[in-house]
Amino acid sequence: MTDPTVSIDHFLLNLQLPAQPETLYEPIRYILKSGGKRVRPKMVLTACGLCNGNTADALHAAAAVETLHTFTLLHDDIMDNADSRRGYQTVHKKWDTNTAILSGDALFAFSYGLIDYYGKSPDYTKEQYARLNHVFVDATRIVCEGQARDMEFETRTDVSVDEYMLMIEQKTATLLQASMQIGAIIAGAPDVLIQKCGEIGLKAGIAFQIQDDLLDAVGDPSKFGKKPGGDIIAGKKTYLSALALQSAPSEIRAELSLILQQKKATDQQVDFVIKVYRDYGVLEAAENAISDLYTQARNALSTFENSIYKDEINSLLDQLMIREH
Amino acid sequence: MTDPTVSIDHFLLNLQLPAQPETLYEPIRYILKSGGKRVRPKMVLTACGLCNGNTADALHAAAAVETLHTFTLLHDDIMDNADSRRGYQTVHKKWDTNTAILSGDALFAFSYGLIDYYGKSPDYTKEQYARLNHVFVDATRIVCEGQARDMEFETRTDVSVDEYMLMIEQKTATLLQASMQIGAIIAGAPDVLIQKCGEIGLKAGIAFQIQDDLLDAVGDPSKFGKKPGGDIIAGKKTYLSALALQSAPSEIRAELSLILQQKKATDQQVDFVIKVYRDYGVLEAAENAISDLYTQARNALSTFENSIYKDEINSLLDQLMIREH
Repeated sequence: MTDPTVSIDHFLLNLQLPAQPETLYEPIRYILKSGGKRVRPKMVLTACGLCNGNTADALHAAAAVETLHTFTLLHDDIMDNADSRRGYQTVHKKWDTNTAILSGDALFAFSYGLIDYYGKSPDYTKEQYARLNHVFVDATRIVCEGQARDMEFETRTDVSVDEYMLMIEQKTATLLQASMQIGAIIAGAPDVLIQKCGEIGLKAGIAFQIQDDLLDAVGDPSKFGKKPGGDIIAGKKTYLSALALQSAPSEIRAELSLILQQKKATDQQVDFVIKVYRDYGVLEAAENAISDLYTQARNALSTFENSIYKDEINSLLDQLMIREH
Repeated sequence: MTDPTVSIDHFLLNLQLPAQPETLYEPIRYILKSGGKRVRPKMVLTACGLCNGNTADALHAAAAVETLHTFTLLHDDIMDNADSRRGYQTVHKKWDTNTAILSGDALFAFSYGLIDYYGKSPDYTKEQYARLNHVFVDATRIVCEGQARDMEFETRTDVSVDEYMLMIEQKTATLLQASMQIGAIIAGAPDVLIQKCGEIGLKAGIAFQIQDDLLDAVGDPSKFGKKPGGDIIAGKKTYLSALALQSAPSEIRAELSLILQQKKATDQQVDFVIKVYRDYGVLEAAENAISDLYTQARNALSTFENSIYKDEINSLLDQLMIREH
């Protein structure tokens, strides 16, 4: 399989964006050029191949998913007041908030416009095209719900593991699920395979996010690239903190809660929290949850006949499972 | 014809919006309840009737257009730092900017989701459904372009009449054009009638905006409901200022430019500017432009056979042309 990232990058950088108005399209060109791992569009293409489709047919949808994801980053960066993204200044810092809001909106519209391709092409039935639109639009709304929950969590101290899981499912995993489903829909796959593809994306997405939380706490700093405990210092809600606040004895919970609410934990406090995570089985539970989710993703994948695309997804799951950063 | 506003309001207020997350959907419910004239959805329904369609079939699209419009207002209010809208506090003031950004995004996605109806219903061909999506998504992108141009104008002193016309066409008239086209598409009208419907919306939309500019300068204060000259005091670019800066003698232009750049014109300066508009034929040119545009809209309308919907649009055009507020 040729590296799909190359064709996606080529496609994204050759999108026919108008030159004017410059304040609208220059930020969009800027953020699309800033790269990223292109995980979602790769999933669209690979799922299409997995279901015996022609991956080239899925390029428009892959670009739609990536531009949609980029739009969410653009607006999330305003909401998080982030200074940089992928080593570049964020749009709202380089330009201003109004420019970032509006460029994001236009990018959102642009991403939907890429789905038009399947409406115009005679190769897709109305049902396929309608389903593509539905999956795409539904995922967008759910991603917004996830972001809203995440923002609500900031002022709450009683976030349960279930609520946390729902948030990461909505904010992160839903778009991975949609990406896989979209690839399958374009390939003309039957319902059961579209659903299996979605499951692979969904489970891998949730696992990835829990692993992120785990690596932040106990990742090898030399490989993870940042000092561990960042989430603890920031008082961020994670799978670990939600589980610890649910399962540790009450006096430990009180102390933990206090440390996280301060949002400025000392090194000693970070060590204490990680020790709590270890002593009360939180790290182990997280590892088990990740492992279960990857197993579920692999089980869903096993439905498919062997192909380079199946190998591709298996190796992606391997990379995700053993990643240290 | 039963009042379409009633069915649109009923439809909009009974949309099945999820209860949770509250911070996402409560602001959406709030802004949808705040009313508005529902001009765009009325145009969708009336255009559908004009083309012999069943107006009830167009309700989903009418709601899609209105929610899309509402999303643009929600984000525009952030960009304009507006305190109130339709007599209610704006969402970003009542909640905060992040909430307004995200609720707007979700409303945007929600509006697209309403078009799904035509994808699922067997009453519409793939071509119709694809065209609906295309008109809808294209209009959204163009509205963003218009808003970007409008923001660019704030820091410019050399906005030409052509540039101004393009901006109002994009920011305001395009969605009216799209509303009319969408109604016609749902009715299954042939291309030529879809195009005629679009022209009615487009021309009326541009005329409406120029008239707004004119009324702000020389409207009857007792009917217009605000002190005239607000745009002059705010140094806002209007059809009148663009034309005056293009056609008045150079020394007058210089003074005019200075007054508008200050953004705090005195009563005396407002009177001076209005006198310039009068003396150099700007008011007359605006009146002629409005009249020409309404004539073009009426000519496009004359293609259609007589119906209550045709009467409805004719009376709408009458109301617009003779409005004093």
